Amino acid sequence: MNPLIDGLQYANWSEKIFRQMRAGKVDAVHVTITYHETFRETVLQIERWNRWFERFPDLIFQGFSADDVQKARETNRTAIFFGSQNPSMIEDDIGLVEVLHRLGLRFMQLTYNNQSLLATGCYEADDTGLTRMGREVVAEMNRVGMVVDMSHSGERSTLEAIEHSSRPIAITHANPHSWHPALRNKSDTVMKALAESGGMLGFSVYPHHLKGGGACTSGEFCRMIAQTADLIGVENIGIGTDLCQDQPDSVVEWMRVGRWTKKVDYGEGSAAAPGFPPMPDWFNDNRDFGNISEGLKAVGMSEKEVAAVMGGNWLRFFGSGFGPLLNR
Amino acid sequence: MNPLIDGLQYANWSEKIFRQMRAGKVDAVHVTITYHETFRETVLQIERWNRWFERFPDLIFQGFSADDVQKARETNRTAIFFGSQNPSMIEDDIGLVEVLHRLGLRFMQLTYNNQSLLATGCYEADDTGLTRMGREVVAEMNRVGMVVDMSHSGERSTLEAIEHSSRPIAITHANPHSWHPALRNKSDTVMKALAESGGMLGFSVYPHHLKGGGACTSGEFCRMIAQTADLIGVENIGIGTDLCQDQPDSVVEWMRVGRWTKKVDYGEGSAAAPGFPPMPDWFNDNRDFGNISEGLKAVGMSEKEVAAVMGGNWLRFFGSGFGPLLNR
Repeated sequence: MNPLIDGLQYANWSEKIFRQMRAGKVDAVHVTITYHETFRETVLQIERWNRWFERFPDLIFQGFSADDVQKARETNRTAIFFGSQNPSMIEDDIGLVEVLHRLGLRFMQLTYNNQSLLATGCYEADDTGLTRMGREVVAEMNRVGMVVDMSHSGERSTLEAIEHSSRPIAITHANPHSWHPALRNKSDTVMKALAESGGMLGFSVYPHHLKGGGACTSGEFCRMIAQTADLIGVENIGIGTDLCQDQPDSVVEWMRVGRWTKKVDYGEGSAAAPGFPPMPDWFNDNRDFGNISEGLKAVGMSEKEVAAVMGGNWLRFFGSGFGPLLNR
Repeated sequence: MNPLIDGLQYANWSEKIFRQMRAGKVDAVHVTITYHETFRETVLQIERWNRWFERFPDLIFQGFSADDVQKARETNRTAIFFGSQNPSMIEDDIGLVEVLHRLGLRFMQLTYNNQSLLATGCYEADDTGLTRMGREVVAEMNRVGMVVDMSHSGERSTLEAIEHSSRPIAITHANPHSWHPALRNKSDTVMKALAESGGMLGFSVYPHHLKGGGACTSGEFCRMIAQTADLIGVENIGIGTDLCQDQPDSVVEWMRVGRWTKKVDYGEGSAAAPGFPPMPDWFNDNRDFGNISEGLKAVGMSEKEVAAVMGGNWLRFFGSGFGPLLNR
C-alpha cells in the first residue's frame, strides 16, 4: 500500500470537500478540530464531526489507529484523525489528555504562537522552554499515545520537547527557515534534531510558509523538499498542507487572536492583507496532491521516495505514535 | 464461562474494594459514575476512574464491550462498565450521548426520582412519560449502543421507554413492588413488559428495596427471585446489588438532593434515619455473591438457572446492548 496522507488540514468542512478527498484518493487526514477552544467547546467540535461521520459514512470515518488507514483504503473512504493546534482544551487539567485521547485526539500542539501553560510559542520574544506542567503533559501524552506537535512553537521549546518526549514528536506543518525565513518555519538545528529522534516534518503549502508566497511554483516547493530530504533523510518527512479551504476570513482572525487580545493581531498577515492568503495555483484542494507527487518525481526523487513522502512515512509514524496503551 | 456480573454498584472505591472484587471473583460491574453532575463534572469522575485503572491495572480495567467480560476472566481482573443514574451530564445536548458512549458510558438512567428533561421519576406525583427530547435521546442511545436504564423512573415513563426503545432496556437495580411496595420497586406490569421486550431486571440488595429492610434474609430474597423468574422468565433477570459500600452519609444526601432543592429530601430514608441503611448480614461486599448463588440453589433453582441469574443473562444483554455501531 502506498497511502496518501495529509499531515494537517483545517478546512470549512462540507460534503464538497469530503468528495474532493475521495476524488483525490486521500486515505487519511489529520484535521484540526480546535484552536483556542475550552474543553467543552472542543467537545462541541467533536460533536460536529460525529454528525458528519453519521451523515457521510460512505466518504469519511474517524481514525483512531494506523490500521484505520488500511481500512480507509479498503473501503474507499478517508480516515479523519483529530488534532488540536493549542493545548487550551485541556485547560489546567492533565486528566483531560487521556479523556481526549479516548475521544480520538491524536495530535496536540503544545503552543499556538503564544506562551501556553506548557511551552513557548514562536511569536514570543523569549522562549523559556517546557514549563513544569509542559513536562508532565508530554509524559502523559507519551503514555496514552498522543503526538506532541510543535508546529507553532519556539525553537528552544521545540528542542526541549524533542529531548523530553520518550516518543518521536511531529512538526505537522512547516517548512525550512533557511528556505523561507518565516517565524513559523524551522531551523536546520530543529529539523535535524527532529529527524534524529525519529520525528516527522510535514511540508506546508500555506502561502505564508512558502518562498514567494502564493507565487511559489511546485518546482520550487518540490526542490525544497528534495533538499530537506538530503539534509535530514527521506524517512522523516511528509506533507502537511495546512489547507484552510473555503474558510471565511473571520476564521483566520479567530486563529490569530482567539480571546487573548482585544486588539487585532495579524499574525503572518498584515493590515493590508488580513485574510487568508491566496493559494498557489497548483494546490487548491484535495484533488491536487498529484501535482506534488509529480513534482517530486520531476526533481529526481525515486518512486519509492515519493511514496514515502506522500504518506508512507506518516503511516509508519501513526503506527508507532498512536499505540493503544490505554487498554490491556 | 459462567460469569459473575453485578448490574450496579456505587461504592466509595478503593484498593480494598477492588481487591474484594477479585476475592469474590467478580468478572464485571456496572458502576455509577454520576448522579446530578454536569458534563464537565462527569468527565472529572471519568478522570478519577482513569487514575484507578492506571494505579491498579492488575485488579481492574475499563470495559467497553461484552468481550471485555471474557478478557476479565482470562486476565483475572474485574471489568468496570460506566453508567449514570441521571441524564444531567448530557445537559441539553443530545450530541453528548455519542461523546459519552465513546468515553465508555454504557448505561444511562433517563431520570433519578425527579422529572428530567427526558422522562418522569418515580417520586413525581404525575408521570407524563417520555418527553420530546426523551424520545430523541432514546433513539440516539439505541443508535450508539447505550442502555436505557429506568430504575428510578415512574411507571408510565418506564412502559413508554420499553415501547419506544428499539433495543431492550434495563432496570439495573430494583425489586418487585408486589413483594415490597417501595416507590422504587416495579409493578408486575412493568416487569412483564420489560421481559417480553428482552430487557433485564437486576435484583437489588439495597435495604430500602428489601422486604424487612436489612433484616431480610437471603432465603426471602432468593425466594423472591425464584418467584419473579416464574413470573417473567429466568432469562431476563440478574443481580444489581446497588452496593454503596464505605460511602459517607454525605453521599446519600447528594444522591437525594443534588442541587435541585435547598431543603433536605430524605428519599427512601427519613429524618430519623437519614443515612445509608445497614446492609443485610449476608451481603456486605463483593465477596458475598456466593451467599446469593447458594441461596438460589437452596430455593430450588438449577445450576444452569443460577448461572444465568448470577451473570450469564447480563453477559448476553451486554453483547446485544453495547454493539459497536459507532465505527464501520
